[in-house]
Amino acid sequence: MKHYPGPVGRLIGELSKLPGIGQKTARRLSFYLLGRPKAEVKDLADAIIDAREKTKYCSVCNNLTEKDPCEYCTSEERDQGTICVVESPKDVIAMESTGEYNGLYHVLHGAISPMDGIGPDEIKIKNLLPRIKEGIDEVIVATDPNAEGDATAMYLAKLLKPLDVEVTRIAHGLPVGGDLEFADEITLSKALEGRREIKY
Amino acid sequence: MKHYPGPVGRLIGELSKLPGIGQKTARRLSFYLLGRPKAEVKDLADAIIDAREKTKYCSVCNNLTEKDPCEYCTSEERDQGTICVVESPKDVIAMESTGEYNGLYHVLHGAISPMDGIGPDEIKIKNLLPRIKEGIDEVIVATDPNAEGDATAMYLAKLLKPLDVEVTRIAHGLPVGGDLEFADEITLSKALEGRREIKY
Repeated sequence: MKHYPGPVGRLIGELSKLPGIGQKTARRLSFYLLGRPKAEVKDLADAIIDAREKTKYCSVCNNLTEKDPCEYCTSEERDQGTICVVESPKDVIAMESTGEYNGLYHVLHGAISPMDGIGPDEIKIKNLLPRIKEGIDEVIVATDPNAEGDATAMYLAKLLKPLDVEVTRIAHGLPVGGDLEFADEITLSKALEGRREIKY
Repeated sequence: MKHYPGPVGRLIGELSKLPGIGQKTARRLSFYLLGRPKAEVKDLADAIIDAREKTKYCSVCNNLTEKDPCEYCTSEERDQGTICVVESPKDVIAMESTGEYNGLYHVLHGAISPMDGIGPDEIKIKNLLPRIKEGIDEVIVATDPNAEGDATAMYLAKLLKPLDVEVTRIAHGLPVGGDLEFADEITLSKALEGRREIKY
């Protein structure tokens, strides 16, 4: 990192901490930023700070939000009788982009993965139960279509069985082993449309 | 960009303006940052601002620097009789990383390229001339080994001929058509070692 003026070296160092950004990319981005107008560079820095400072997790559904409870939980236009359970806020975005879902969400922030020591207590299942008691008809489990996502779906189906709520799983129209957030909208729409009750 | 909380959408927008960063990468980086400690995120934003605010161009050699004139121009340990002419500050870093050069620099911020309408007046050649008069023995032209870099080298050789200074070109040990900043250190060392006077 020598040879660089101090602040440039520091910027390269910070950028190269980001996932998928190596030394050369960090260097390229740094020199790009050094050549941009100050206002534009400040916009980027402000956006980084703002996004981190102003967003929090909704106390009801755990989704990323500016206000608590979030817009989905408080919207009168959304179907308050359905909850879609997903692993991460990114998955909420993916579901929304289908335009086919208009219910509520519950973000688990992970999936059950015994191999990694992640059990039901390590993800945000606890605040899902009181939500079900308030009169939810259906819980759509839209965890990732892989072993962890399926295990989480099974766990939820068993957990919610006594609560007299229909628990469904989005169809495996999704490529198995894949990652929900990268699914294209049509595949995701089909998966949502073909959801079936979890049998065990 | 809908579906995202405002500040997150803004961050994704700002990140996707960076070269080589598309929507999906911007989204991935944004969610990564949202999950990091606030202090770490602030470090990144500060580094961006600092690098842009605290660095300027040396009034002597046009290189990026914190203080003006820069460390190279004012260093007593460096050979004050040799100037290496490069296209960009990134190329200074590349030259320094060879460990084989201990003279001064002159950064052109570009190369002559008639096709793109870039002539000698569009790059920073003007403040090179007064530097030569102060008693420089050799000017090493280390512009990129492509058509524009070679044209710039020829131009400089003709321009500096009357000033009684040796003008050399780093050897084409560099892959022709390549980009100086991505050369490996050994190739660059060899190119520096094999430099020859420009004949025309």
